[in-house]
Amino acid sequence: MTETLALARDEALRHAADHRDEALADLVELSRIPSISALGAHAGDVRAAAQWCAEKLRALGMTVEIVDGRVHPVVLAEWMGRPGAPTLGLYNHFDVQPPDPVDLWTTPPFDPVVRDGQLFARGVADDKGALVAGITAAEAMFAAGGPPVNLRFFYEGEEEITGVSLGEVLCERAEALACDYVFIGDGEFDRPGVASILTGLRGVLQCQIEVTGAAVDLHSGLYGGVAPNALNSLAHILSGLKGPDGHITVPGFYDDVQVPSPAERAQWPADVDEDALRREVGSVALEGEAEFGLLERLWTRPTLDVHGIVGGFTDEGTKTVIPARAVAKLSMRLVPDQDPDRLLAAVTERVRELATPGVEVTVTGLGQSRAALFGVEHEGVAAAQEAFAAAFGAPATLKRMGASVPVAADFQTALNPKMIVSGFSLPGDNFHSPDEHFALGQLHGGVDMLVRLAYGLAARA
Amino acid sequence: MTETLALARDEALRHAADHRDEALADLVELSRIPSISALGAHAGDVRAAAQWCAEKLRALGMTVEIVDGRVHPVVLAEWMGRPGAPTLGLYNHFDVQPPDPVDLWTTPPFDPVVRDGQLFARGVADDKGALVAGITAAEAMFAAGGPPVNLRFFYEGEEEITGVSLGEVLCERAEALACDYVFIGDGEFDRPGVASILTGLRGVLQCQIEVTGAAVDLHSGLYGGVAPNALNSLAHILSGLKGPDGHITVPGFYDDVQVPSPAERAQWPADVDEDALRREVGSVALEGEAEFGLLERLWTRPTLDVHGIVGGFTDEGTKTVIPARAVAKLSMRLVPDQDPDRLLAAVTERVRELATPGVEVTVTGLGQSRAALFGVEHEGVAAAQEAFAAAFGAPATLKRMGASVPVAADFQTALNPKMIVSGFSLPGDNFHSPDEHFALGQLHGGVDMLVRLAYGLAARA
Repeated sequence: MTETLALARDEALRHAADHRDEALADLVELSRIPSISALGAHAGDVRAAAQWCAEKLRALGMTVEIVDGRVHPVVLAEWMGRPGAPTLGLYNHFDVQPPDPVDLWTTPPFDPVVRDGQLFARGVADDKGALVAGITAAEAMFAAGGPPVNLRFFYEGEEEITGVSLGEVLCERAEALACDYVFIGDGEFDRPGVASILTGLRGVLQCQIEVTGAAVDLHSGLYGGVAPNALNSLAHILSGLKGPDGHITVPGFYDDVQVPSPAERAQWPADVDEDALRREVGSVALEGEAEFGLLERLWTRPTLDVHGIVGGFTDEGTKTVIPARAVAKLSMRLVPDQDPDRLLAAVTERVRELATPGVEVTVTGLGQSRAALFGVEHEGVAAAQEAFAAAFGAPATLKRMGASVPVAADFQTALNPKMIVSGFSLPGDNFHSPDEHFALGQLHGGVDMLVRLAYGLAARA
Repeated sequence: MTETLALARDEALRHAADHRDEALADLVELSRIPSISALGAHAGDVRAAAQWCAEKLRALGMTVEIVDGRVHPVVLAEWMGRPGAPTLGLYNHFDVQPPDPVDLWTTPPFDPVVRDGQLFARGVADDKGALVAGITAAEAMFAAGGPPVNLRFFYEGEEEITGVSLGEVLCERAEALACDYVFIGDGEFDRPGVASILTGLRGVLQCQIEVTGAAVDLHSGLYGGVAPNALNSLAHILSGLKGPDGHITVPGFYDDVQVPSPAERAQWPADVDEDALRREVGSVALEGEAEFGLLERLWTRPTLDVHGIVGGFTDEGTKTVIPARAVAKLSMRLVPDQDPDRLLAAVTERVRELATPGVEVTVTGLGQSRAALFGVEHEGVAAAQEAFAAAFGAPATLKRMGASVPVAADFQTALNPKMIVSGFSLPGDNFHSPDEHFALGQLHGGVDMLVRLAYGLAARA
């Protein structure tokens, strides 16, 4: 790195260190917005979060555009003030999961509170903390004479609903949005002090199964024994999709599952400690395919989980009805090279086979993304490793993750950049759960790392 | 029948015929009270319905007592003005089922409306219509010089929640509440114009299964493959309790099932027309044990139906959680001589066997009653047959019913009267379903029949 570049970097780092309170204030402000993409009633809040991001980026001097998506907006920002320098794209999402069950939160989910060095609020860890780290890093670089690389920000509001809007924008404007590197900031550390850079992500196939029996809910005394029960039938269907051993029993489901290479496995950390993972989960035992290790089950094996069931009488007390209709929402996590469309067809066929007499079933796809594998033998990962080592004291672990970042595959397909799939949250931050939180040290360390990444990429150019 | 008795009967029948508008007005008034016993928020309404009944009976000159029950009150009324004459007890219930799904009602469930000769409101058919018929019949007999028999009214407010309060009162005060005959008015006609007198009822065993896996709902991407999913596990449990063929797969479940005698079967009507029943149910086909006829499945075979499932994310949109907890409410309809306590233990053991790795399960009983068989070779049934023939043009069919009237067994045990288990609703009145209704002709015919029954019993004494 040239001395000029190093001086500018240090000035940016100093600026960030001097403005930590402002970074936290920004994160608190953004976390107050209940930008729940799954609930139509919160569409205005998702838009408000988009506007908050857009204003912040405009204030830095970036060119910002809010693009209407299918459901929620996409925010695109660019600063191309370093002709000839590489272009770094940063991806985050400003939408959050619903906060239920709300009664299990210690403090209200959209009333951010700092306790023990952690900010508690829905979405702080997934993914507003990392989003604010990116804005804060850019601000520090603009304050220190301008970023050393060209910058693009890609923020979406449909991540938690597996939306397609950002992916569509990337495909439509691939040329105009070209990046040399894309940093996906939606992941979490391997463990405290040690980040992770992901070499692969699972995809997802979400769907809904609807079972219809009688015309209306019937009295179970008068019709029990002859009238089809939509909930009993749904139970048969769901239990026929995955065995108690965790093995999915949809014909052909595993046909295209790719076994990870020995070279990739050699990069992996030691397998997870079963008892530690069990305690983290909080159950009496773990479940799943016993013939595979825990990391294999979490990273390289597909899954099938039911997320919710609606049907019949669910209020207080009892009501002896035969439910006429029942609906289950479920999803499968996919691995390379499973094809979501082919699997949706296979699941649909299997559900039809499993339906008990007298019911009609429909299966509806609710969103999907393919699994992705990323190359890590490039300058982007090298610069990120250097930046993580300097900011957090250790380079990142190279690993896969079981969750899905649908746009990661879209970035690869549309822009073909060098990918750095990482993030700043910590395991145990309660992604999608009550009392979600984000450590202030991760916020400030994340800013530091992103500043170092940008200068590191400039130095390598 | 003596001429004096016949004249008094005719005067009572004339009085009833002249006061039909008042009977309808009474039923409308009672049906406006949302006396939903299953919902705690409606406890005051259940009590209001009890008080409405008590005031009506007091106005006739009967001695009335409102007895506090475990959940809701019991109303007891008596008139013992005919020493030496037999005592007739009438049973009805003033509580109703919850009205959900409310959006499927044509008019609001507690805003009674007459359309096409039917009164539409929650509870009119089950069981407020028959209850008002009893009060109206008594009123007519008091107006015609006083009832020819001693009268007792037994009204409860816990029928729809399988409550035990009336049963307890009957046992505690068996001597004071003695009856020669008890008319249970909670049933329905065999078909339009032809009543039914029930020779047997199924019992019921209600329970709740709770499955607990992780400590909180978890992200299905990050934990899918290792964390137990309470809803997937619940689906395995429920599908393992009853096969797609309708056969219950709890070991020992059928051990005590009594096969009906050839003599009883000879009384039965011809088997139900399958296609007609299928249309009534509104499904593409019927389900159940194919080796048994439809009447056998409805009357003499036990069942298992899931009524509702709670767990996971059930709002609009998607949320990819692994639910930590799931609950199913279900019940089994029982037949002679199944023992609810023994079966609850067998179900609990089976549920424990079916639980998948990593979950904990609990099974809780929510109420029960044994199935009952009633003798029909007595003066009460003979008088009822005569009354039905005169009031509706045909005697009643002798048959069983698949539903449960838990207090019927309690009356038998505590008072050992001659039982007449019948009622005035029609098939298709939508018991427990949206658009429940009761024909005005059944209300007025019911009054006529009950007046005739009382004089018929007096004539036979």
